[in-house]
Amino acid sequence: MKRIVLLRHGESVWNRENRFTGWTDVDLTEKGVAEAAAAGELLRAEGITFDRAYTSYLKRAVRTLDEVLYCMDLAWIPVEKSWRLNEKHYGVLQGLNKAETAAKYGEEQVNVWRRSFDVAPAPLADDDPRNPRFEACYAAVPPAMLPRTEALCDTIARVIPYWECEILPALSVCDSILVVAHGNTLRGIIKHLKGIGDDEIASLNLPTAAPWVFEFDSEIRPVRDYLPGDPEENARRMAAVAAQGRAG
Amino acid sequence: MKRIVLLRHGESVWNRENRFTGWTDVDLTEKGVAEAAAAGELLRAEGITFDRAYTSYLKRAVRTLDEVLYCMDLAWIPVEKSWRLNEKHYGVLQGLNKAETAAKYGEEQVNVWRRSFDVAPAPLADDDPRNPRFEACYAAVPPAMLPRTEALCDTIARVIPYWECEILPALSVCDSILVVAHGNTLRGIIKHLKGIGDDEIASLNLPTAAPWVFEFDSEIRPVRDYLPGDPEENARRMAAVAAQGRAG
Repeated sequence: MKRIVLLRHGESVWNRENRFTGWTDVDLTEKGVAEAAAAGELLRAEGITFDRAYTSYLKRAVRTLDEVLYCMDLAWIPVEKSWRLNEKHYGVLQGLNKAETAAKYGEEQVNVWRRSFDVAPAPLADDDPRNPRFEACYAAVPPAMLPRTEALCDTIARVIPYWECEILPALSVCDSILVVAHGNTLRGIIKHLKGIGDDEIASLNLPTAAPWVFEFDSEIRPVRDYLPGDPEENARRMAAVAAQGRAG
Repeated sequence: MKRIVLLRHGESVWNRENRFTGWTDVDLTEKGVAEAAAAGELLRAEGITFDRAYTSYLKRAVRTLDEVLYCMDLAWIPVEKSWRLNEKHYGVLQGLNKAETAAKYGEEQVNVWRRSFDVAPAPLADDDPRNPRFEACYAAVPPAMLPRTEALCDTIARVIPYWECEILPALSVCDSILVVAHGNTLRGIIKHLKGIGDDEIASLNLPTAAPWVFEFDSEIRPVRDYLPGDPEENARRMAAVAAQGRAG
């Protein structure tokens, strides 16, 4: 039995401040570090180990992965990083408070920006200092590939090729892979794996730092998936994520 | 100008307990994490950045590297890990207190084990649970290559091929590389780079988490090396390392 575990990063400073983060490189909070360590302990208690890991270019995901690996005595395993696993780009919303934005534009509009499949927030201007083209870490990416904003369908369009070309084929040489990424990139992967419809995917709310295990047969077909840990705690965390877009 | 920065990991739990560590996978202390962060701040203040990093399989080195990269906003750069950068293997001494061992066998004998070029401590038995052949992380290493003990010359014999085949040639595609490793692997690399004699290398005491910068010309010949930071602080730290083998 082969395995890929998907893990959303722990609480970040802007999760706590309820701001749209996207590609902004904010750090974990202390709670986020503790959540990552707890995920590592949970995986260890489940008898799970890993022989390779993937993460995004963003510090909150890299640090979550690092903390999980320390807790599992797996700091030595190879780690691949890719901008294609970065969070959905939130365009001009990046940095704004979600509740304030909801109070200004209405909860419905914010929910469209957060959860619609194909409506993106307004793009960053070419000379906006938040434009990824100014950052050293994206210098090797063809400029036309770098987003200025994204709808979920755009995020999926850049993450699935990486999933198909890099992560999934690695199961032919690895038994167990850990992918630490972000709410929307993982939503895209789970949609792809489970054949969830464009309209339904919006209501899938991934809790922070709760591992989601996918098992594959020897021909790398998905056969089973489950969230280890306490079901009530997982449900409580999913509800907390869903509530973030509300004004009050 | 090309650059490789060598960095010894921060204080580990067994550094603090003054025990022979070698390949034992002990974690950093809180002081060690803070030292790593300070090294990151120092490098940033020097205007140094990195486009690739190398480290060993041992958690205290990986974690030092991770902490430096967080502080420099470089969590996204590629990191390669190799057992060839692991600390010198201390054979049956691994786990023993350095001062107690000095009290038992004499300071002179301990200094031979710690610093002689070609005298190794007694090797671990084949069935010793500390034998690296029992650890998952070394499963892909040909068993005959895995040490049961090492003198400094043995450590050098396994680290220099990695330096020559992997790290140094990477300067043809990178401008600036960070290598986070251990007292004896770095001693071996510095001996190789600076042409230090077999008898002199023993007295080179590398302080924890003090970066050592090596600059190379366009043909990858070393041209200059220096320790950034406060010279008195660096000297104080080197003296502290040298004192560890004393009985009292």
